[in-house]
Amino acid sequence: MELIESISRSSSTKIILLVVDGLGGLPHPGTGKTELETAKTLNLDNLAAQGICGLSDPVSPGITPGSAPGHLALFGYDPVSCNIGRGVLEAVGIDFDLQPADVVARGNFCTVDEAGLITDRRAGRISTEKCAELCQLLDGLVIENIRILVRPVMEHRFIAVFRGGDLSPEVTDSDSQELGVTPKVITALSQEANSVAGIANQFVAQAKTTLAEYLPANMVLLRGFSKRPHFPTMGEIYKLRPAAIASYPMYRGLARLVGMEVLETGTSIEDEFMTLTRNYSDYDFFFLHIKGTDSAGEDGDFEQKVRIIEQVDDALPELISIQPDVIVVTGDHSTPALLKGHSWHPVPVLLYSKWCRPDRVSEFSESACILGGLGRFPATQIMPLAMANALKLTKFGA
Amino acid sequence: MELIESISRSSSTKIILLVVDGLGGLPHPGTGKTELETAKTLNLDNLAAQGICGLSDPVSPGITPGSAPGHLALFGYDPVSCNIGRGVLEAVGIDFDLQPADVVARGNFCTVDEAGLITDRRAGRISTEKCAELCQLLDGLVIENIRILVRPVMEHRFIAVFRGGDLSPEVTDSDSQELGVTPKVITALSQEANSVAGIANQFVAQAKTTLAEYLPANMVLLRGFSKRPHFPTMGEIYKLRPAAIASYPMYRGLARLVGMEVLETGTSIEDEFMTLTRNYSDYDFFFLHIKGTDSAGEDGDFEQKVRIIEQVDDALPELISIQPDVIVVTGDHSTPALLKGHSWHPVPVLLYSKWCRPDRVSEFSESACILGGLGRFPATQIMPLAMANALKLTKFGA
Repeated sequence: MELIESISRSSSTKIILLVVDGLGGLPHPGTGKTELETAKTLNLDNLAAQGICGLSDPVSPGITPGSAPGHLALFGYDPVSCNIGRGVLEAVGIDFDLQPADVVARGNFCTVDEAGLITDRRAGRISTEKCAELCQLLDGLVIENIRILVRPVMEHRFIAVFRGGDLSPEVTDSDSQELGVTPKVITALSQEANSVAGIANQFVAQAKTTLAEYLPANMVLLRGFSKRPHFPTMGEIYKLRPAAIASYPMYRGLARLVGMEVLETGTSIEDEFMTLTRNYSDYDFFFLHIKGTDSAGEDGDFEQKVRIIEQVDDALPELISIQPDVIVVTGDHSTPALLKGHSWHPVPVLLYSKWCRPDRVSEFSESACILGGLGRFPATQIMPLAMANALKLTKFGA
Repeated sequence: MELIESISRSSSTKIILLVVDGLGGLPHPGTGKTELETAKTLNLDNLAAQGICGLSDPVSPGITPGSAPGHLALFGYDPVSCNIGRGVLEAVGIDFDLQPADVVARGNFCTVDEAGLITDRRAGRISTEKCAELCQLLDGLVIENIRILVRPVMEHRFIAVFRGGDLSPEVTDSDSQELGVTPKVITALSQEANSVAGIANQFVAQAKTTLAEYLPANMVLLRGFSKRPHFPTMGEIYKLRPAAIASYPMYRGLARLVGMEVLETGTSIEDEFMTLTRNYSDYDFFFLHIKGTDSAGEDGDFEQKVRIIEQVDDALPELISIQPDVIVVTGDHSTPALLKGHSWHPVPVLLYSKWCRPDRVSEFSESACILGGLGRFPATQIMPLAMANALKLTKFGA
């Protein structure tokens, strides 16, 4: 990354990184074809024929990445050393102005029975409006001189921010991600974190009292206590003016952490592509995030994932028509509908530029990408490749 | 590298590393074929059919290497941590006996106008003879007890060696590689380098006075101040007796830095292959360097690059007839004629030995190498592979 920073230069060329979340899949038992292979993707196939393809590993072979490491790798950051707490991710994703000394946890409203055992970790996915209403009940508590700010995220999710001292986030989760158990006591993993652990447990106890009559959201679970990390920005590393187009908070938050400007956009694929076209002259790097593929994969809905890939393909001509210098189409990880979740399988990558040295791949699919000219490579190399193809990297060494 | 050193052993088998500088290319828009794919290379194709092929990255994907990192990687040295200053490279390349305490800069004779602004960074590429004559005028100055030795390299290029104390090379260049500006004042980047900066600026001032009447070579530019690095030699690492056959100074210099013996040779491809045959019994490793492909690529001369590749192919039977145990044919980087310069594209690699486990590639080309048995891999792995195929590496571990 220091090497890249030392040879990157600003120029007028433009790069588009189209991230189809959870793009990679597994073959349907009935047809032997993955979601991407099943989808009719004439435009992607044409682009693959003109470009160069391969398969990338977000972290390393066998490792199933979460959304954060998956995206950090795509942005060129080492996903292992640059790990981000879940609390921070959620906070940045809702535009919360997190201070360097704050500790933040991700919260779930959940349901507990009379014995205090968790029966639903998501409180029946209450509406975002209901969530906001409940957050107001909990917001602003002061415990041991620390003020706890509570903000809604989406559905059952919220954040709890502990503000007022230089706090340590090294504490365990109260959410063991199991049913039929009581929420865990939060414990300190270091001496400095004793006060946060104590305050967080008091907060949870008060929340239980306050929420008693709000079934199904009668309890909270906290996890991912963390502080804002300090990364060099994409502007610093790549000399880019980067912009993010993403409808889902977490991806906007991730983009902000690496210094992208987050553009206002609607929630549909058409909205996102229109946002790209409208802002095209103001930036030289666009991260465009498509969430639906991952959601369909997580739901085990093979056909829905196929449909969303086809919608992306339908929108592609609009992107191609603005003639970006470099187009990369890939995912942050695989989410096979058959596994109903993220997986470790490498992710198809398509890179198009005037200088890409095309291979013989003429179809954008997992099986075709195996034979692509990019080979199999770590996802952290996608940004250096995109930068090189945009002629934004100078020679290394004499 | 320590691992390789611990398992390497001397033996009678012989390795030839044929480096076709800037070998990799990009497809001609008219034909869709690269320089290597356009050239008729029956002998290389035959060797590819018997051997194993792949694509290698000199530094890492997306990084365009200079000649030094490109070659260091081929010799098995990490090209990022083993970076060499430009001054040292030039000095070693002209057989200059650089002492460990010397600081050396690369110099250009250049042209400045009456206001002192640079109008030609290369003084119209004066002849090497003229350069030698001007160097004599500047050679032997003594400033603050430091003697400055000035030696011609080629055309407008020379070296300035600062000798007589334990000097620090941590100073900036006077050459900002721009026109229309004055040469920059050389400044120290550390306290220890103050004296070199002062002396170098005095040297430049005196050179300006001396050269006043020698238009177009009426000024000098200095860059790449550096000291001789200290690498383990190829003899130490690989237990080889390595020899270099290269007509261009920089490659001879690089070979010397890693402990190769540099053989006297002529400038044509035939000369170089004859030098190989003549010295074949005295060494067990030969680095044979072909410069013309890179020069043609830099000039944007697609057809010339094709012709030189065909000349290499024509000379190959002579090399094969002496029956080396291992033959590697590759480049130090790609130099596509379309880009008129070095590029980041991976480089075709062909390895032939009796023990190479051949793949199905029967044509030496970028697109065929994608499907080769070596896959896509870092160029630093070429030497371990060559050593293994020469049965010069013992088993690692019990």
